[in-house]
Amino acid sequence: MIDKLCIIGVGLIGGSLARALRAAGACKSIIGCGRDSKNLEKAIELGVIDEYSINIAEAVVGADMIVVCVPLGAMEMVFQAMNGAVLETAIITDAGSAKRSVVASIKRALGTVPKNFIPAHPIAGTEKSGVGSSFAELYQRRKVILTPLSDSSKTAEDKVRWMWQQTGANVISMDIDHHDEVLAATSHLPHLLAYGIVDTLASMDDRQEIFEYAAGGFRDFTRIASSDPVMWRDICIHNKDAISSVMDIYIEDMKKLAQMVKDGDGDGLHDIFVSAKQIRDKFNKMLNGEL
Amino acid sequence: MIDKLCIIGVGLIGGSLARALRAAGACKSIIGCGRDSKNLEKAIELGVIDEYSINIAEAVVGADMIVVCVPLGAMEMVFQAMNGAVLETAIITDAGSAKRSVVASIKRALGTVPKNFIPAHPIAGTEKSGVGSSFAELYQRRKVILTPLSDSSKTAEDKVRWMWQQTGANVISMDIDHHDEVLAATSHLPHLLAYGIVDTLASMDDRQEIFEYAAGGFRDFTRIASSDPVMWRDICIHNKDAISSVMDIYIEDMKKLAQMVKDGDGDGLHDIFVSAKQIRDKFNKMLNGEL
Repeated sequence: MIDKLCIIGVGLIGGSLARALRAAGACKSIIGCGRDSKNLEKAIELGVIDEYSINIAEAVVGADMIVVCVPLGAMEMVFQAMNGAVLETAIITDAGSAKRSVVASIKRALGTVPKNFIPAHPIAGTEKSGVGSSFAELYQRRKVILTPLSDSSKTAEDKVRWMWQQTGANVISMDIDHHDEVLAATSHLPHLLAYGIVDTLASMDDRQEIFEYAAGGFRDFTRIASSDPVMWRDICIHNKDAISSVMDIYIEDMKKLAQMVKDGDGDGLHDIFVSAKQIRDKFNKMLNGEL
Repeated sequence: MIDKLCIIGVGLIGGSLARALRAAGACKSIIGCGRDSKNLEKAIELGVIDEYSINIAEAVVGADMIVVCVPLGAMEMVFQAMNGAVLETAIITDAGSAKRSVVASIKRALGTVPKNFIPAHPIAGTEKSGVGSSFAELYQRRKVILTPLSDSSKTAEDKVRWMWQQTGANVISMDIDHHDEVLAATSHLPHLLAYGIVDTLASMDDRQEIFEYAAGGFRDFTRIASSDPVMWRDICIHNKDAISSVMDIYIEDMKKLAQMVKDGDGDGLHDIFVSAKQIRDKFNKMLNGEL
């Protein structure tokens, strides 16, 4: 059981976590914290949190679990602001999409990485932002990756795992650098590409017509380009090495594909399409729980 | 009214057209034609067609409307096979995703482009294939583009427009080369990219894990990579100039984006993401009929 949960950043991710833990009866009280009091009042109205403060040092007082759900670029400032105000026994965790940079942020802010800090990444979300989009079921059957360090507290890790399990998520632990590499390929690259293709098409002369004649396939392909620009800017900055490396591979592959089109290499294209279709169909079944 | 409709290629596109026209009471009888008699028997069982033949020259006899719904690479062979068997008054149309190549195919097959041939492209589909996936509502509120040539029969064009309108589609006419350019950007490029990214990720060492930790965003992003490989191979081959040209622009843009990530250019990335999100949100509203 969590006595006092403090969620810093009450948007889609933080709000959905609060809702899920409340629904599971996993915490006694929830304090929300953020910059925007209007958003926090809305969170109270929606029953997502019990109380709020726009002052981080105030919000964390007495909390036994502190979850930081802000864009990666705001992490360091948040950790700085809580310095000295946190209970010695409090567990701190986060929900950032790249983990190495969060560890660097907390180290810069506090001079050391607390043993009770457990980096975490819930692999869930929608293209929508804000507490108004949050819902208790967001994490059900989704994966949450913990990336504890060699000297992280086992008790703290167990408690964070327990917390996420209460939301219905499958929680696993993974090496932190490996996390950043895998997520660069599987999540960060696709988001960058979705933004990129919309930008490419929008720069064309036929811009208006192009979007007029686009169909449902294009809508799905670009759905993630409706995601929060600040969050994704920060991910690109804070996981830049892993993203750069996978972008380079991708661009080389695209050049080969473009050359195959130019050469009219039907067999080569067919092979790639058949193999990609098989893999994608299998992935879809996996995600549907059919595999 | 269509007396005898002949659909060559009874899959998702041809099957859905047959179902929609039957539901609208727009045709008296439907004959299906294809290579695979099992598929055609299934189409009869499903009530999609009334009768079938696996012989094109037989199937077209007496038909007043012939719709060719085969991959672009099979068009020429189909037109060759119907040579001499078609009623002089019959209207011929197709459903290919690139139009200049279909005109070239019929010209090679028949020595001339018949005045009663109206190239057409229904912008609709799902990632599924086959008559089992067909449904009467596929074309409702979707766009169908006709690309008549300067000497095409107006009467034939009107009849093809009328036919597609019976399915609930919005039918427009467009210059044929312009069609091929716009669709290269808006449909052909995204399909190529979706196949491409699945292929890139599948070539990585962490392949198994990469797909394991991918989430819903990735599923939507890659949905079109489950499309029919033969159809898309043929589109790449038969619209290769327009696709190559848009691929080149896209690759240059991706290089710039990769450089911004490497440079840690947060402002530049943020600008692109904000603008892409605005455009994509607007496009989504447009597709939902909210604009």
